[in-house]
Amino acid sequence: MAKPKKTPRPKAETPKGFRDYFGAEVTQRTEMLRAIAGVYHHYGFEALESSAVETVEALGKFLPDVDRPNEGVFAWQEFDENDKGDWMALRYDLTAPLARVYAQHRNDLPTPYRRFAMGPVWRNEKPGPGRYRQFYQCDADTVGTASMAADAEICAMLSDTLETVGIPRGDYLVRVNNRKVLNGVLEVMGLGDDQAARDNVLRTIDKFDKVGEQGVRELLTKGRLDASGAYIDGVGLSEDQAAPVLAFLTSKAADAAGTIANLRAAIGTSEMGAKGVAELEQIGELLAAGGYGSDRIEIDPSVVRGLGYYTGPVFEAELTFEILDDKGRKRQFGSVSGGGRYDDLVKRFTGQEVPATGVSIGVDRLLAALREKGRISAQPKGPVVVTVMDRDRMADYQAMVSELRNAGIRAEVYLGNPKNFGNQLKYADKRNSPVAVIEGGDEKANGIVQIKDLILGAQIAQSATLEEWKERPSQFEVPRDQLVAKVREILDGQG
Amino acid sequence: MAKPKKTPRPKAETPKGFRDYFGAEVTQRTEMLRAIAGVYHHYGFEALESSAVETVEALGKFLPDVDRPNEGVFAWQEFDENDKGDWMALRYDLTAPLARVYAQHRNDLPTPYRRFAMGPVWRNEKPGPGRYRQFYQCDADTVGTASMAADAEICAMLSDTLETVGIPRGDYLVRVNNRKVLNGVLEVMGLGDDQAARDNVLRTIDKFDKVGEQGVRELLTKGRLDASGAYIDGVGLSEDQAAPVLAFLTSKAADAAGTIANLRAAIGTSEMGAKGVAELEQIGELLAAGGYGSDRIEIDPSVVRGLGYYTGPVFEAELTFEILDDKGRKRQFGSVSGGGRYDDLVKRFTGQEVPATGVSIGVDRLLAALREKGRISAQPKGPVVVTVMDRDRMADYQAMVSELRNAGIRAEVYLGNPKNFGNQLKYADKRNSPVAVIEGGDEKANGIVQIKDLILGAQIAQSATLEEWKERPSQFEVPRDQLVAKVREILDGQG
Repeated sequence: MAKPKKTPRPKAETPKGFRDYFGAEVTQRTEMLRAIAGVYHHYGFEALESSAVETVEALGKFLPDVDRPNEGVFAWQEFDENDKGDWMALRYDLTAPLARVYAQHRNDLPTPYRRFAMGPVWRNEKPGPGRYRQFYQCDADTVGTASMAADAEICAMLSDTLETVGIPRGDYLVRVNNRKVLNGVLEVMGLGDDQAARDNVLRTIDKFDKVGEQGVRELLTKGRLDASGAYIDGVGLSEDQAAPVLAFLTSKAADAAGTIANLRAAIGTSEMGAKGVAELEQIGELLAAGGYGSDRIEIDPSVVRGLGYYTGPVFEAELTFEILDDKGRKRQFGSVSGGGRYDDLVKRFTGQEVPATGVSIGVDRLLAALREKGRISAQPKGPVVVTVMDRDRMADYQAMVSELRNAGIRAEVYLGNPKNFGNQLKYADKRNSPVAVIEGGDEKANGIVQIKDLILGAQIAQSATLEEWKERPSQFEVPRDQLVAKVREILDGQG
Repeated sequence: MAKPKKTPRPKAETPKGFRDYFGAEVTQRTEMLRAIAGVYHHYGFEALESSAVETVEALGKFLPDVDRPNEGVFAWQEFDENDKGDWMALRYDLTAPLARVYAQHRNDLPTPYRRFAMGPVWRNEKPGPGRYRQFYQCDADTVGTASMAADAEICAMLSDTLETVGIPRGDYLVRVNNRKVLNGVLEVMGLGDDQAARDNVLRTIDKFDKVGEQGVRELLTKGRLDASGAYIDGVGLSEDQAAPVLAFLTSKAADAAGTIANLRAAIGTSEMGAKGVAELEQIGELLAAGGYGSDRIEIDPSVVRGLGYYTGPVFEAELTFEILDDKGRKRQFGSVSGGGRYDDLVKRFTGQEVPATGVSIGVDRLLAALREKGRISAQPKGPVVVTVMDRDRMADYQAMVSELRNAGIRAEVYLGNPKNFGNQLKYADKRNSPVAVIEGGDEKANGIVQIKDLILGAQIAQSATLEEWKERPSQFEVPRDQLVAKVREILDGQG
């Protein structure tokens, strides 16, 4: 007789590229999202939570022309007896769903429609170190207006948001540029219609941050030797042709008026370019009227990141303080947010062009920045732990915990097997508890409790016996009715 | 030559059974989740956010023995050249992921592990009216302890949570029962081993809420005529056999001691039953020590919902106030939360039994209850709208909005085409704005602004001309530098 087949135990693992978030990681992100939502709401933006699942048709670009369209997205087919069920997929960003929502509900939504959205998105990509297939996005967009006031508002809101979550003025800068100015520059270079040459120039501009003015000049013309000694072919422009791009990239002056003047020179006679410069000027005026100076928001033509995706103004928020990288070298923390204007949001659905502008904040990077600066704790304090010396008096310990909680103090009773007191101390240690409360039979008889400051005692908690532990000067004996007052005093002293 | 194939426009629709949430629906749920998380955290519970995607293997019960295991879950196969990629699925609840997380991380987690989790879950079920395939769950569980103190704590926490989110004492009741007591009753009935008869009795008990004591008596014995006149066969027990079940279901007395005494009588000599009664007694003592009286939490053997899934204590929170149903009849609002003790949490993964107890709150039902009681608004106030009378003076309007925002007042400037003033009023109406600000050329010249109380003016906003609108007594003319003060005065007056 064959042996009965045993089902092997399932592996307790997340799927590849996914992870779990514990304790403070979750709580701090939730608090940050709440703070950001508060600012957005204050600016008149309304929350939107679209479903995590969209039809592949509505998401676009991932059409089910293969059996399983899982290029880039996680997708599956709705069950249908004739195998004709809709293909569905997890959203890969919050903008594609916004397009679908606006097209679907446009008759019920106000126009313009200011909305914010925050939540996980999913990418079917090869996972790598620090690269997950589920992560948070946090977006705000204004749909249905071409007014530069919408773009200026997004920049002001971004500035307020950064200060609200704990990045002080001076530690960040919102930088604004305009895609139309660059298009104007390409026009005066005589590349208005030459898509291949334009693409080459755009790719080169993207390297400005890395290789600087001289590097871009060489790459636009004859080419250059890179750091490894390899020769990189140039785009083949003449020095004269390359000049407007370089003038554009280096047009930042001491003040906005100077920058605007430099940009006007760079775009020469291009109408498109002039429009872009006028838009930047308008944004500058609106921000000045709102009291946002160049210490918070500035026009900076060297912002090239994302220029390719947008049709008008583009924004980027950078944290300007220095951190040490993996190799101990100083570098700026860098970008935590980006956005800009795009005009084809709902055209796929309705055929109409609807102008829109928006911004996305990298919440996880912002959290990392705050931890880096010590503004939020990587391992916050745990609850006060009431230990259990006598399992038959659980009700006594329960009463203590209730008193502490009612006084606003985070507290819990030890719920494991109380036999081994060392385990209770290890537990309190693992919980990062600031205070432990002890009431054995003697204490009970004498109407007192022992209260232990664990921040001082943490190092010896792993190995100490109860007796050693009681001898530490960080332990206090108080009458039972002073339990709450003494715990509060210790917590206050710990700061 | 064939016509170039035109791609048809995609439909702007959510997939079947999914929906979007707008504005206050999102904000109010977020606030409620925050309030609940605050209580859980105060009790020493830690947040956990597991990934939305799990392997089908880890989720269990949906094994990929068919090509696409989408029975109940949304699942897909990871791409792999040999078609051997893992099957993955969206989580269908928060308990299965907790089991996986605890098994995976048990060496790093404190024991006992108190955790809370909140977020969407997905069910691949046939959608229906009000029945969605994505919805929120909000759970708290304590893993790794058999102590009744853990169960008592969950009940106390549930009570605190309901009061914190806005259900006053007297409008809810947390009811506690114990599965072991029922098992004891089945034992004394002589059904300890007869699974078919046990199942019949359990199914009948589940009808207690509907048919009452006499109905259950008839269903357990000879059967009964239901409301429609159809005859329902009975289980076929004798009156004597049925007696312990009825004693159990009706054992609730004026106080906990009375109920406990009645239960002891119902379970007779059963050891299992005695254990269950002792557990209930212990929970009662612990809650009393914490100050939780029977006005908040009570032992109630008529709680049968969910008894089948749990192994010990079960809890249910009911809202006790009356609402009118669809047909205008009064009925109690009913259950908003349930939970209990279960012991096989991680056994699938590790082979070890790990005791656990927990609770799940129906956040959407709780929100519905608060709206029903008028404690949260179904349509909260929108932002103050600064209208645009002169598009060239956008900077002036921007400055007003900044002043209002800096004073803590939610405000926005109208960003649509300002030509038609009526559209601006319609917009303010759609936004549910409490106040509109107007500054035309005359006002500007005279250094004043018009401030309109829109709560009073809402009804005529749809059709009024600007002149009619200005004549309303709800409109105020104030010096420009009193803008913020006057807006605040109006907002305060609106309550």
